[in-house]
Amino acid sequence: MLPTVANRPITFMSDFGRTDEFVGVVHGVIATIAPGSRVIDLTHDIEPGNIMAGALALMRSIQYLPQGVLLAVIDPGVGTQRRAIVAETAWGHFIGPDNGVLSPAVALMGGASRTVSIENPDVMLPTQGATFHGRDIFAPAAAVLASGEAEMNELGPLVDPGDLTPLLLPLCEIEETHVTGQVWWVDRFGNAQMNISPDDLARIGLSPGMDVTVRIGAIEHLVGWVLAYGEVEPGQALLHVDSSGLLALAIRDGNAAEQFTVAPQTGVTITAGRRAGRRVPLRQA
Amino acid sequence: MLPTVANRPITFMSDFGRTDEFVGVVHGVIATIAPGSRVIDLTHDIEPGNIMAGALALMRSIQYLPQGVLLAVIDPGVGTQRRAIVAETAWGHFIGPDNGVLSPAVALMGGASRTVSIENPDVMLPTQGATFHGRDIFAPAAAVLASGEAEMNELGPLVDPGDLTPLLLPLCEIEETHVTGQVWWVDRFGNAQMNISPDDLARIGLSPGMDVTVRIGAIEHLVGWVLAYGEVEPGQALLHVDSSGLLALAIRDGNAAEQFTVAPQTGVTITAGRRAGRRVPLRQA
Amino acid sequence: MLPTVANRPITFMSDFGRTDEFVGVVHGVIATIAPGSRVIDLTHDIEPGNIMAGALALMRSIQYLPQGVLLAVIDPGVGTQRRAIVAETAWGHFIGPDNGVLSPAVALMGGASRTVSIENPDVMLPTQGATFHGRDIFAPAAAVLASGEAEMNELGPLVDPGDLTPLLLPLCEIEETHVTGQVWWVDRFGNAQMNISPDDLARIGLSPGMDVTVRIGAIEHLVGWVLAYGEVEPGQALLHVDSSGLLALAIRDGNAAEQFTVAPQTGVTITAGRRAGRRVPLRQA
Repeated sequence: MLPTVANRPITFMSDFGRTDEFVGVVHGVIATIAPGSRVIDLTHDIEPGNIMAGALALMRSIQYLPQGVLLAVIDPGVGTQRRAIVAETAWGHFIGPDNGVLSPAVALMGGASRTVSIENPDVMLPTQGATFHGRDIFAPAAAVLASGEAEMNELGPLVDPGDLTPLLLPLCEIEETHVTGQVWWVDRFGNAQMNISPDDLARIGLSPGMDVTVRIGAIEHLVGWVLAYGEVEPGQALLHVDSSGLLALAIRDGNAAEQFTVAPQTGVTITAGRRAGRRVPLRQA
Repeated sequence: MLPTVANRPITFMSDFGRTDEFVGVVHGVIATIAPGSRVIDLTHDIEPGNIMAGALALMRSIQYLPQGVLLAVIDPGVGTQRRAIVAETAWGHFIGPDNGVLSPAVALMGGASRTVSIENPDVMLPTQGATFHGRDIFAPAAAVLASGEAEMNELGPLVDPGDLTPLLLPLCEIEETHVTGQVWWVDRFGNAQMNISPDDLARIGLSPGMDVTVRIGAIEHLVGWVLAYGEVEPGQALLHVDSSGLLALAIRDGNAAEQFTVAPQTGVTITAGRRAGRRVPLRQA
Repeated sequence: MLPTVANRPITFMSDFGRTDEFVGVVHGVIATIAPGSRVIDLTHDIEPGNIMAGALALMRSIQYLPQGVLLAVIDPGVGTQRRAIVAETAWGHFIGPDNGVLSPAVALMGGASRTVSIENPDVMLPTQGATFHGRDIFAPAAAVLASGEAEMNELGPLVDPGDLTPLLLPLCEIEETHVTGQVWWVDRFGNAQMNISPDDLARIGLSPGMDVTVRIGAIEHLVGWVLAYGEVEPGQALLHVDSSGLLALAIRDGNAAEQFTVAPQTGVTITAGRRAGRRVPLRQA
């Protein structure tokens, strides 16, 4: 074990919220086992049990996180037969339930070279009840790997990486004149990220600077595809490439999700701008 | 002072919330005095002034926290004559107001060997107003103890540990055929933890695998006492031993507290299962 | 570069909230570039885009934060022409958008000795979109300065410190018999801090121990100016010097902002106590 492998940082994401002491207790377990490892809280406010939301947040983030250990506890199946896994990638170790929450990020990092099912009771805390695997199973596994105290294969048997639970991400569909997709994420500021990339729009002949029509339900909105908020007036809607590299619907100094009544999974269709569309700017209330 | 005693971790709990900068300022004070000490945030969303909720969260957590310093600022009496104390235990130092918030956790750790009343102005920040003792009194005390910069007895006079404000935890009552208790905690997922242990239920002849009747108000609910969520169907209620070792009412993939309309202090009575009871599973809306 | 200059702590404030992964991603960027620097989260729940609220929180906190780097991302103008700046002060480096959020704290620390406009693409992350400058511009700048990896003048051209965007703080007005001001901050506990200091009240002849009349809208409230909550009964209103050294309206064990219906910017006028005023104590509902 090279010295540089010890004391790796751990990034921790969950749906535990911050009101209960769950997050703090996991930090406590990690600090006890791996006192030299920094812990970064990615977010703990993933909607309870929402595997898709957790997986998407992880995909958006992984390239910005310090290589080491990723601990993701979005675990609606705690107390059922789902496995607890570690997937080894070029980035580092991904730890969590085998329910798909890790799969897209693991794939982004080139896939898993090895995967184990965490089953060794020696690296688990003696548990009361079977409901807090974040504390009793996942945190100790993350901590011993981060500290260098154990090798991955000491945690349990190797399993076939191809046998892990996948997560089917809904992708957009590109037709001759339009792209049909959905909203993947609405952030705090009301920006609505879609599963549509600039390349997808290029395939139907659209490019930055053009007006495009965004159809949501039965309503068409005509907006400009701009490079930055500053190109439109406050209160005006816009389409732009967001910080994840995907198209997002936004309103400068406003809340697009509220204004357009969209949420994750809301369907959208984008075509070339049509003047017959309901013209945006929308003024904010 | 042994080197290993310096740079001990500090676990910090409060009712400050996260919206204001209170928590960050306490971190700032600690980082200034004890730059080598890690700070773990247990939770800062204890209901404002709820000493019982804070004490229970601490009891559930203490065995999982790295030994060192515990800072608990649930302090509805700030600006009154209540004392600020440090209690020394086998686990480490507990610091907070003398209002009972620390008492159960101190008792769990074997009681206090020594206690001081924090009164030395040299280890306090020069204060403006008398309302933010977390910043001006408790954080500096925690930091100098964690860093090894001061000994406990430099903080103020010794006081009689037996003289501290106790916290009277409501306990369950065990009769011949039933156990009467109350809800102690409802977590983010709607699980309702009760002040009833598996041993308490064993004394009236109940054991895992049996059906039990849980009476809440005038309504009786028949649920199975199971070992894990996976033993019931999604949407079905269950009784199980939770991650603190206490009985909890839960609904697989559901919110028991909402479904059964319970909150902390709601009374419950548990007896052997009676088929006349209103049969659960409840389907989620 | 002296060794003591490396690994300086970074205090981080934003309006990102905690629900999205924005804060975690900024931590990830910092941990990657400056693994030896501690990061303190001051708060991330500043109202989105509220520059004044962010500036006031920073003013209240700065003297309690460990000297080093301050990163403040309240940035409603992201994607417009506003500059990204570093201001060097006796306290350390302040980093954020040039929109006034840093200005009062920089002034409190004696003003900026040097200021640069962050423009060097070599210390920015290759960005997708132009919306997450916290991640792509501000975090790397903070991290290279904290780690000692770069000098301030490597980040971009020097600009005139006097040319920065100021923030005009509304100040109170002192007349012969009254002080007219406004509420600056309502905290979690409902305490209403005003832009009025004890010195301001002294100039109209008021001092602690006296009754004063606080007029809010058309209603006059008679309250005692006390030194600590303990001087009034639970449920009773009071005026006192709060932890920032400013006058605040509070209710012992109660919520003054709700009781008196005040919020930031609500106007208040304080005069000597008049018995004709509506007498407080208010009993809590």
